[in-house]
Amino acid sequence: MVIIGGGFAGLYAARRLGKERAVEVTLVDRRNYHLFQPLLYQVATGALSPGDIAQPLRAILRRNGNTRVILGEAVELDPVARRITLSDEGTVDYDTLLVATGARHAYFGHDEWAVLAPGLKTIEDATDMRRRILLAYEAAEREADPVRRAEWMTFTVVGGGPTGVELAGALGEISRDTLRRDFRSILPSDARVLLVEALDRVLPTYPASLSQSARRQLEHLGVTVRTGTKVTAIDEGGITVAVQGDGTERTERIPTRTVLWAAGVQASSFGRKVADALGVQVDRAGRLPVGADLTLPGHPEVMVLGDLAIAMRHSGKPVPGVAPAAIQEGTYAAKSILAHLHGDTPEPFRYRDRGDVAVIGRLSGVADIRWLGRFGHMSGFLAWGMWLGVHILYLIGFANRIVVLIRWAWSFLTHGRGTRLITGEPHLPPIKRPEHL
Amino acid sequence: MVIIGGGFAGLYAARRLGKERAVEVTLVDRRNYHLFQPLLYQVATGALSPGDIAQPLRAILRRNGNTRVILGEAVELDPVARRITLSDEGTVDYDTLLVATGARHAYFGHDEWAVLAPGLKTIEDATDMRRRILLAYEAAEREADPVRRAEWMTFTVVGGGPTGVELAGALGEISRDTLRRDFRSILPSDARVLLVEALDRVLPTYPASLSQSARRQLEHLGVTVRTGTKVTAIDEGGITVAVQGDGTERTERIPTRTVLWAAGVQASSFGRKVADALGVQVDRAGRLPVGADLTLPGHPEVMVLGDLAIAMRHSGKPVPGVAPAAIQEGTYAAKSILAHLHGDTPEPFRYRDRGDVAVIGRLSGVADIRWLGRFGHMSGFLAWGMWLGVHILYLIGFANRIVVLIRWAWSFLTHGRGTRLITGEPHLPPIKRPEHL
Repeated sequence: MVIIGGGFAGLYAARRLGKERAVEVTLVDRRNYHLFQPLLYQVATGALSPGDIAQPLRAILRRNGNTRVILGEAVELDPVARRITLSDEGTVDYDTLLVATGARHAYFGHDEWAVLAPGLKTIEDATDMRRRILLAYEAAEREADPVRRAEWMTFTVVGGGPTGVELAGALGEISRDTLRRDFRSILPSDARVLLVEALDRVLPTYPASLSQSARRQLEHLGVTVRTGTKVTAIDEGGITVAVQGDGTERTERIPTRTVLWAAGVQASSFGRKVADALGVQVDRAGRLPVGADLTLPGHPEVMVLGDLAIAMRHSGKPVPGVAPAAIQEGTYAAKSILAHLHGDTPEPFRYRDRGDVAVIGRLSGVADIRWLGRFGHMSGFLAWGMWLGVHILYLIGFANRIVVLIRWAWSFLTHGRGTRLITGEPHLPPIKRPEHL
Repeated sequence: MVIIGGGFAGLYAARRLGKERAVEVTLVDRRNYHLFQPLLYQVATGALSPGDIAQPLRAILRRNGNTRVILGEAVELDPVARRITLSDEGTVDYDTLLVATGARHAYFGHDEWAVLAPGLKTIEDATDMRRRILLAYEAAEREADPVRRAEWMTFTVVGGGPTGVELAGALGEISRDTLRRDFRSILPSDARVLLVEALDRVLPTYPASLSQSARRQLEHLGVTVRTGTKVTAIDEGGITVAVQGDGTERTERIPTRTVLWAAGVQASSFGRKVADALGVQVDRAGRLPVGADLTLPGHPEVMVLGDLAIAMRHSGKPVPGVAPAAIQEGTYAAKSILAHLHGDTPEPFRYRDRGDVAVIGRLSGVADIRWLGRFGHMSGFLAWGMWLGVHILYLIGFANRIVVLIRWAWSFLTHGRGTRLITGEPHLPPIKRPEHL
C-alpha cells in the first residue's frame, strides 16, 4: 500500500502500519521531513529554527522494516493500472492508496499577491517571512524620512484565523519585547501591527466570547484588530481594504511594507489529479468528499485524508482542517486497512473534537475544551499552559522536544528570540538610496 | 570608530569597546548575525541547525548603548574623506577603522568549480552541502544501475586541513551510523568517503605524529585518505587527480557525484578595495600585511584584523587564520584604541598560540596543546573532550550552548543527526529517468 504525503495524516497512518508485517508500506513525499506545521509561525517570527520543528521521515520510520520512503512528487494517477507517476517519471504501484497531500495557502484568485504577501505552509515560506519582518526593521532603522519609516514599521497580517492571530501576537511581542533594545534610530515599540479579517470577529470557529477575549489580548500586545475589513488590493507600498460598517462599505488605503498572508487555503494540486482520474467532484477549495470510511465514493481502494478531504461528522458538519483531525484520520485509515486484512468491517470514522487552543504572545491565549462545555472556555495563562503542553506532546523527536522547551524557556526568561537570522538572498535592507550616517 | 565585519575579530573588538562611553562604535556587516564558523561543518552534515551556531549581532550588542549595528555591505573606501560607501549607496564616516571582513573559499583560478564543489563559509553554503549529501543518498536509493549507484555513494572532500578532516569524519559517521537503518535498497555503510589532499599528509599545520593519528582515525571511520593527490579537474560525474609517487606523476579519474571543497581560502573582496585605496600590496591570497600594532603601514587610523590580515609573530611566522587568532586580534584592537584614547602607547600585538584541536567523528580527534610541548600531543578521546569544551565555551548565546549540548548528547546516544533537512530548491533527487518501484 502507498501513502502520498508525510504530513500528520500520512505519517500517523505510516507509523501505525509500520508495526504490521502483513503489509508493505511505501510513503512518498516531496520533502525528506515531516513538518510540525502548527509551530511554523514561530520559525517565521524567529523563536525556533526550522530544524526544531522538522524531523526526517526516514529517521521517524527507520525501525519499520516494512516501510519504504521515497522522496518524490506524485503528479499522475492511473486508476486502471493502479499506478502513481512521479515528477521524475518514476512510478509506484498501489493496491491500497492513501492520499494525504494536504493544502497550500491560496489568494482567492489573486495569485499575483503571492510575491507581495507570503503565506505560511513550508519552511521556505517561514524563513522568507522571517527575512521580510527583520529586513523591514533594518530598513526602518536606516530610513530618515518619517513617513517611509512608518510604512516600514507597519506590519499587516491578513486573516484572523488561528495562524493569523498567533502571527499577529508574535509580531506584537517582537516589537514590544524582543527588539526593544536592538535599534538606535527607531523604537521598535512604535511598530504598528494590523490584523485584518473580513468577518466580524477573529477566530470565527471559536465561541464568540473567546473571539472577544482574543481580540482584547491582541490589543493588549499593541495589535490593531480590524474586523469586517476585506483586502481588495495589495501592492509594494500597502494594501487597499473594503470596510463594512452600518450597511455601507468604504474603501481605505493602508500604507504598509510588510504583508503576511494567513487567509485562505486550497487543496494541493495532486488532489485535483486524483479527483479527475477517479471521477470525483471537488469543492471550491479543491477538496475531495469522502465517505464515512474515508474512501472515495466508488473507490474503496483509495482513501483521502487530512486537509485534502471533506469528511463529514455525525452532526453533518465537516471535520475541520486541523492537525488533530489529520492525526485521527491517519490512525483510522491504518486501523481500517488492518481490519479489512483480518476480514472485519471497520467502524465508520468518528472525529473526536477535543477542542481548540491558540496562543497570543506571552502567557496568554484562548482555549475551548469541548468536553468541558462552557467551563472549557479559557483565556490567558491557563490557555497558554495548555497550548504549551499539547504542542510539546505532539512534537515528534525527543531531542526536538527538549530543544524547543529550552528555546521557549530562554525566550521567556530573556524576552529574546534567538533564531532571528536573515538567510537566503537578498540579505541587505530593501532600501536603495544615498544616506549618510 | 567603524568596524567592518561581525566575525570573531570584529565582534570581539565591538564587545570590548561597547563598554566604553568615550567611543562611538558602528559595526557594519552584510549579515544580521555572527556566525560561529568552526561548527559550520556540523550544519552541513545535519548535526546542528543554522540557528544553533548563529546569533543576531543586534542581540549580542544590545546593551552597548554606544554601538550601532548597520546591515550593509561595504564596497568602497575613500581615504581622504575617511568614508565607507555601502552597496546601497549609504555612507559611513570613520575616524578609526577596523577592517575584519575575513576570507571566503577560493578555487585557485578554477571559479567554474564553484557550482560543482561547494565550499563552506556561509550558512547558505552549509545548507547547500547538506542538501547535496542527502540528495545523493536519495538518488542512490532509487538508482537501479550499480555503477551509477556507486557514483552517487562516493563522497569526495577536497582539502586535508581541519575543515576537510572534520567534514570527512562526519561523512564517515553519517554512512556508518546515522543513516544505517534509513534506506531499503542501499546500505549507507557501502558509501565511499574520499579525502583528497595535495600535500603528503593531512592537517599539515599539526605535528607529523598527529597527522598520522588523524589519518588512522579517519580510516577507522571508513574514510579513504589520498595524500599527494591533487585535483586537476572537476565535472558532474567525477574528478580528475594527479597522483605523486616515486618522483613520477600519473593521472587518475575518480567517479563521484558529490564533491565538497575545503581546500583554499581567499581574502574577501573588500580587502582588495582597502588595499588599493590605501596603497598597500596584498599577498597571493589577497591578504593585507599589518604592522606589530595591526595597523596598515602609513595609516595608523586603519587596522586590519582576522583572516584578512597577515600579522607577523615574534618568531617571524605569520599568525594563522584561525578563530582564536581573530578573537585575540579583535580584543587587542579594542585595547589599543582605548590606550591611544588615554594617551598611552599600546604594546605590540602578541599572538598566544594555545594550540589546535580537530574532531574526527565520535569520541576521537587530535589536539596539540602548545604549552605542554610534546606532552600536549593528544589523540582520541582526550582530544575529543577538549574540542567539545572549547567549542561550547566560545559559542555565543547561552541558549545556543544548551541547545547545541543537547543536540550533541542526543546524537551521541542515538547515533542520530536530527537536522538532516533538505531545504531550498530543488528538493527532489537529481535523477530523471523512468523507474518502477
